[in-house]
Amino acid sequence: MTEEIKIPEEHPRAESLPIREKLIKHFKSGDVTSAGLIAHGRGEALDYILGEKTTQPALKATKAAAATLLTAKHPVISVNGNTAALTSKDIVKLSKITRAKIEVNLFHRSSEREIAIKKLLEEAEATEVLGIGEAASARIPEVGSERRRIDPKGILIADAVLVPLEDGDRTEALVRMGKKVIAIDLNPLSRTAQFATVTIVDNIVRAIPTLIKVLNKLKTKNKKELENITSTFDNKKALGEAIDIIHRRLSKLAERGVYLPILEVEEP
Amino acid sequence: MTEEIKIPEEHPRAESLPIREKLIKHFKSGDVTSAGLIAHGRGEALDYILGEKTTQPALKATKAAAATLLTAKHPVISVNGNTAALTSKDIVKLSKITRAKIEVNLFHRSSEREIAIKKLLEEAEATEVLGIGEAASARIPEVGSERRRIDPKGILIADAVLVPLEDGDRTEALVRMGKKVIAIDLNPLSRTAQFATVTIVDNIVRAIPTLIKVLNKLKTKNKKELENITSTFDNKKALGEAIDIIHRRLSKLAERGVYLPILEVEEP
Repeated sequence: MTEEIKIPEEHPRAESLPIREKLIKHFKSGDVTSAGLIAHGRGEALDYILGEKTTQPALKATKAAAATLLTAKHPVISVNGNTAALTSKDIVKLSKITRAKIEVNLFHRSSEREIAIKKLLEEAEATEVLGIGEAASARIPEVGSERRRIDPKGILIADAVLVPLEDGDRTEALVRMGKKVIAIDLNPLSRTAQFATVTIVDNIVRAIPTLIKVLNKLKTKNKKELENITSTFDNKKALGEAIDIIHRRLSKLAERGVYLPILEVEEP
Repeated sequence: MTEEIKIPEEHPRAESLPIREKLIKHFKSGDVTSAGLIAHGRGEALDYILGEKTTQPALKATKAAAATLLTAKHPVISVNGNTAALTSKDIVKLSKITRAKIEVNLFHRSSEREIAIKKLLEEAEATEVLGIGEAASARIPEVGSERRRIDPKGILIADAVLVPLEDGDRTEALVRMGKKVIAIDLNPLSRTAQFATVTIVDNIVRAIPTLIKVLNKLKTKNKKELENITSTFDNKKALGEAIDIIHRRLSKLAERGVYLPILEVEEP
């Protein structure tokens, strides 16, 4: 169905195209859903507008996220299809540094997908994967259908949950359950971004490795220093700054758009 | 794989979700590719930022597009998988009003997909569908692989081509061939948007019905009046206005983002 497309290095999408290909590969093997592909496209558009790089407010949020994970008693990393497809190795690294449990949590839950994603994580050397099958016997209140299922050994008792690529309903419900929620979401205006305790507005393929680096720096700090980082972090302010960056970048792109200097259009 | 999700009418995505479901249905039947799903996601994000409605510059471009089609000797509508999946009935209506030929033109070309899309168009009462199999025997210069194939009875001899959801390479090549290119593209900064003669920055599910309405109004005008519309239309200016709308809308969303009044967050 797909033809072989060579991506020249100078192509404006040189970095995003291999990620897209990776996701499509995992779609074909059943880890990723069709809705996951569309969600990825939304992310691509927002990442393009953000400039496809980690911004200063994202770095600040990453620092707060690291401090939150390091001071948590029961940190849990919630993994969905797109996250497993794109970053399973880094997710496992992250869980080892923070001693966070890994729980599979799918919007479109099916036995086959749970097992496929568990396998991906195990191939990335995860030693324990929660939330599979009957293990997800607890429920998130006020969330519909199969999305509400959580593991009593994982998210149910977690005090901090990292949710890359989560939906708004669940994020809101987890916050209502009293948990600190760390979201990774390219849309600073999404319900997930706005409800989370800490929102990293960045692409997960950059955000998770950055989080690992920051964790390695912060893990020697004492509890007081870490708590100082979390208590001085203002998520609304960081979101405002992210929106402001999008805004300024659009202004810049808009100027180019009007005058077209980058495109060297041959006038007819 | 997918669970049944009921979409409440007051859901912020109430209009975009059924469109997404429609596309996924056509993905499953082979009309739409995985890359097409991701492209749709990018469109969703941009449409969300645009406010999910037809803007004034889009209306102006639609008028210029209608005049271009009505004054063309050989207008052709180029149809890809996403276009056929979402708007095949309207594409056929459009071809009847403008006497434009319909040509299937795929980024990821395969016999099966060509035939599936032809079938979709015929179910929508198309009487002739160009560009299928050996019929696409001509080539667009400087475009790679199977994407370059065009029909000698269609795009090759066309003086005006409507390309909803086209890629930048082909748009550029068609313009270089001396054709007037009408693009429908939600990204005013894309190469397609910037190279086209007339760019309608709108969602195709709104743009095609709007174009039909405008055509019905303009079809009684004489050639001089129509040519006056096309010659006074400035695509760069219209693109600049579209970018400006995105810009202003982000400012508005950003204010809300910072203060969160729409979300009624319960502070912990």
